[in-house]
Amino acid sequence: MPVGTQGTVKALLPEALKELDAQIILANTYHLYLRPGHELVRELGGLHRFMNWDRPILTDSGGFQVFSLGDLRRISEEGVDFQSHLDGSRHRLTPESSIAVQEALDADIIMAFDECIPYPANRDYVADSTARSSRWARRCKEARRSEDGAGLFGIVQGGMFPDLRAGCARDLIEIGFDGYALGGLSVGEEAGLMYDMMECTLPLLPADRPRYVMGVGTPENLVEGIARGVDMFDCVMPTRNARNGVLFTSFGKISIKQARYARDPEPIDPDCGCYVCNHYSRAYLRHLYQSGEILASVLNTHHNLHYYIQLMEEMRSAIEQDAFLDYKQEFYRKRQ
Amino acid sequence: MPVGTQGTVKALLPEALKELDAQIILANTYHLYLRPGHELVRELGGLHRFMNWDRPILTDSGGFQVFSLGDLRRISEEGVDFQSHLDGSRHRLTPESSIAVQEALDADIIMAFDECIPYPANRDYVADSTARSSRWARRCKEARRSEDGAGLFGIVQGGMFPDLRAGCARDLIEIGFDGYALGGLSVGEEAGLMYDMMECTLPLLPADRPRYVMGVGTPENLVEGIARGVDMFDCVMPTRNARNGVLFTSFGKISIKQARYARDPEPIDPDCGCYVCNHYSRAYLRHLYQSGEILASVLNTHHNLHYYIQLMEEMRSAIEQDAFLDYKQEFYRKRQ
Repeated sequence: MPVGTQGTVKALLPEALKELDAQIILANTYHLYLRPGHELVRELGGLHRFMNWDRPILTDSGGFQVFSLGDLRRISEEGVDFQSHLDGSRHRLTPESSIAVQEALDADIIMAFDECIPYPANRDYVADSTARSSRWARRCKEARRSEDGAGLFGIVQGGMFPDLRAGCARDLIEIGFDGYALGGLSVGEEAGLMYDMMECTLPLLPADRPRYVMGVGTPENLVEGIARGVDMFDCVMPTRNARNGVLFTSFGKISIKQARYARDPEPIDPDCGCYVCNHYSRAYLRHLYQSGEILASVLNTHHNLHYYIQLMEEMRSAIEQDAFLDYKQEFYRKRQ
Repeated sequence: MPVGTQGTVKALLPEALKELDAQIILANTYHLYLRPGHELVRELGGLHRFMNWDRPILTDSGGFQVFSLGDLRRISEEGVDFQSHLDGSRHRLTPESSIAVQEALDADIIMAFDECIPYPANRDYVADSTARSSRWARRCKEARRSEDGAGLFGIVQGGMFPDLRAGCARDLIEIGFDGYALGGLSVGEEAGLMYDMMECTLPLLPADRPRYVMGVGTPENLVEGIARGVDMFDCVMPTRNARNGVLFTSFGKISIKQARYARDPEPIDPDCGCYVCNHYSRAYLRHLYQSGEILASVLNTHHNLHYYIQLMEEMRSAIEQDAFLDYKQEFYRKRQ
């Protein structure tokens, strides 16, 4: 899922996202709650209409951003009190209000409100936080209006402790959700540890519900996640990297600002069939980046999202053809 | 002509420019000469291919930017010595080198190298500068390779002195150009004085050649210029204003950042049929602008260029129907 934090996938028109075959995007509840405000978005017909996007939208719960605020927030059983990063104004987010905000935004997939546990964290903290997130998950389920057809996903926490993850998964399954996410990954731990957490948790989740790993990740993370049974990801990596001139290719990442590309007539990736690779040279893209041109962000974002979406499509197709392991091998071979 | 200073009309894809029916764009010789360099652009197949634009390109001579450098430049009969605004490196631009750079860029319309005289300026300075610009115009004509089919335009200077303008026009006509521009307007003078200069100069220019007023201007300037016989304009006004949140409409300018638009579900201009007005509310555009989103520049630029190009198309059509004066009256009535 491309990330559209403030009601826009940065630098791209909705039509470009469709051309890229994006099936769903993610929007951030925290940001939209603060600006322009969920009531304003509701008044204007919901987020789809507001941003001219008629495909599904998943909203996060706001928890991740709120918990990133550090000294600006305080957790209680009721919820989280925090100050806006924009103007310092005081707010409270609770499981109930998070659901209400996401409903006002008219999300198609609503995420339960949870605490994203930092890494490292000691076992006592993780156990307490995870238990509270499970209680919050139940309150989210109860707060959810049933009539609007949107899905509600629970989020498995438990830090890097397999038994706490397993316990949390059991709690969430008992409550019952339309899909299950793994939260609190890609927060600074080694990739191997993240894969371990996927391996011990994913098999516990219902096979007939989507499994979503939040905030992940690199192309390698996606391949390894898919290998372990993940269905969905979101990450700012393709879009944020694009704006910093870092481009994804079948042979690894390149930094378009490097002098070696100054006179390079080749496309970013000669094997890529995207609009950008069909029409622009590395030399032009470097020139745009060096010149601080807005079009650099537009074209780089387009290419990177094409890379990510194409990667997911290829993996789906490989699975359907029972050839995923071959695909994975080839994926790594190309980047050697 | 939309302005594409650094080899991109800021924030827009070439496909969007075509959707807007832009027939030609302007690129800046000074900027492209310094970065990425005209030889690099030539190596990569010329500016059309470099920037993925297969319609005509007009390049300015570089003179305007060089003369804006103030203390960083020194004029002689030979040309202008100047220091780059990017890195302070020293360069010389002459009539001959300006033509060579524009040829390397593969421009379809090449502008003669001249001095853009500041305002106000005393008669002696203007007379000397204009005479030198005429001598430079002759050198440009001589320097021009004939084989590549691009047009060469002369630029009438003469400050705000009708007789100097007339003399310069006569000199240029004697040299013989494919089109004639008026330079040194919209440099701080009153609009009435600019219109006076158009009125006294345009009738002296050959009726069968395009007449181009450089660096102009507001919608009102375009209407008044057309009324006086102008065929072509270029200006950063629609694109630069867009990036600052100032939008053009049939009823005048609006600043989208104003709080009055925060909950406004209307499009920028209910009478506008552009992509932006068809799909986005003022509230959304204000949100994007307030949030510093790249899409604000993309959508605002699209709308403003639509406004300008549409205005020119409507005026052409009114002239063809012998109804220009009615059109002009209606144009002013709507903005009351």
